[in-house]
Amino acid sequence: MKIGYLGPKATFTDLAVTTMFPFAEKYAYDTIPECIDAVSNGEVELGVVPLENALEGSVNLTIDYLIHEQPLPIVGEIIAPIQQHLMVHPYYKEHWNDVREIYSHSHAIAQCHKFLHTTFKKAKYVYMTSTSAAAKFVSEHPHLPIAAIANEMAAKEYGLEIVKANIHDYDYNHTRFIIVRKQNEELSLQSTLYAGDKTTLMIALPKDQAGALHQVLSAFAWRRLNLTKIESRPAKTGLGNYFFIIDIDQKMDDVLIPGAIAELEALDCTVQVLGSYPYYII
Amino acid sequence: MKIGYLGPKATFTDLAVTTMFPFAEKYAYDTIPECIDAVSNGEVELGVVPLENALEGSVNLTIDYLIHEQPLPIVGEIIAPIQQHLMVHPYYKEHWNDVREIYSHSHAIAQCHKFLHTTFKKAKYVYMTSTSAAAKFVSEHPHLPIAAIANEMAAKEYGLEIVKANIHDYDYNHTRFIIVRKQNEELSLQSTLYAGDKTTLMIALPKDQAGALHQVLSAFAWRRLNLTKIESRPAKTGLGNYFFIIDIDQKMDDVLIPGAIAELEALDCTVQVLGSYPYYII
Repeated sequence: MKIGYLGPKATFTDLAVTTMFPFAEKYAYDTIPECIDAVSNGEVELGVVPLENALEGSVNLTIDYLIHEQPLPIVGEIIAPIQQHLMVHPYYKEHWNDVREIYSHSHAIAQCHKFLHTTFKKAKYVYMTSTSAAAKFVSEHPHLPIAAIANEMAAKEYGLEIVKANIHDYDYNHTRFIIVRKQNEELSLQSTLYAGDKTTLMIALPKDQAGALHQVLSAFAWRRLNLTKIESRPAKTGLGNYFFIIDIDQKMDDVLIPGAIAELEALDCTVQVLGSYPYYII
Repeated sequence: MKIGYLGPKATFTDLAVTTMFPFAEKYAYDTIPECIDAVSNGEVELGVVPLENALEGSVNLTIDYLIHEQPLPIVGEIIAPIQQHLMVHPYYKEHWNDVREIYSHSHAIAQCHKFLHTTFKKAKYVYMTSTSAAAKFVSEHPHLPIAAIANEMAAKEYGLEIVKANIHDYDYNHTRFIIVRKQNEELSLQSTLYAGDKTTLMIALPKDQAGALHQVLSAFAWRRLNLTKIESRPAKTGLGNYFFIIDIDQKMDDVLIPGAIAELEALDCTVQVLGSYPYYII
């Protein structure tokens, strides 16, 4: 199966795709829109792009592009922990404490703020366009006293030695990736990583009024539909007009969710089902 | 007045700071935590970091760092449109259509997807760590047929010629920056950019249960406190536990907001006032 993902090689998106689909034929795309377009025009069957808390992609861009440009259904989600490691060329393995410059993506360096602050008080930080680009640079300069912060896939890809694992400040940090497809067909994966199902809706309120969101949530609350995520996003019309992205922690059913949607539409809300799909934790 | 901001020079954060505080002494910091720390330890009086939809910073990082590490009050907000321009070295001004490579931050290139797709079908894209780094590179290579995508400040800073203004796909795209300070003192700015006041709360629910969020929002709805933003964020304890960031479109008062907070606390929610502050639209 051909799968497109937000590249480059050996980034966190690549790691998620490789863990989830070990036998897939992978294609890296440079931007989120390009990856989604590739699914739309049939170059690849599935596309995997970051949705939340990503190092490499703009989160808002994914939702905006799916809503306004290419309305592809979400057919699955991958939740991956962010684990950052310090790695050096094998030549520097024994004296990694002496490195003078640390290469990585600026967000990765920010995520390891506490570790870096105490361990490398005098090091200089060099920002690269991705964590894997940093690992590549370090591998190509074996005699420079430098280290990279990246994931284990980048260490393997570029032959670096992980000298300090899990140097990120917060253990609870996760990235979410969505899997999009041209047709809304089930993934039918038999994966031990399966962790549950969810349904994602986009809801636009008729106008910005006090309590409007509260009224919308009533439709879910009295049906005991549990919302695990809610996010307001400015609409195309400018500041002050919002739509909401809501995750319900169950599959689309025949009665409850369609009933809530019908009521919301009767209240002049616009509702769009972005997908009802399984999620996997890796 | 000394103001720290998320650098480098001539990025969108710098543009926002310069517009808002034309006479300030500006200091660029490499990461969001470093900028916030600089306010905390007194190096600078105010710090300006992106909160939402930013090109340069990780949004989640700002809120997480303020909640978990350095609880500085938010004393103001700057809302700035994202305007991307195509710029070249003056040497290439007349034949900019012939450029073969376009340099920018990957998010900026993604934001101009439609324009680039139709105007430069064969161009190669080169990713830099920021839009201003791209402008700098183009200015240093006057004889290469290359262009940068960046803001007008970068064009001025590096002596480039804007050959196509406003090439971004969506006009409604804005970035929000917050202003933090060590003490919760009012900014007392007499600015014509003043657009209103808001209060930002962090609310952690006692446990993940159907309708809990609905109950929380009731406390605001019946008081006619209008929420202009609501965002769920995973809590430190891992997947499935959430806290919420809520914006109320008015200043902290003596009765209504304190009353809602007292009720929520009686329901075992944890509530933290992140700030009550004016916002400015530039």
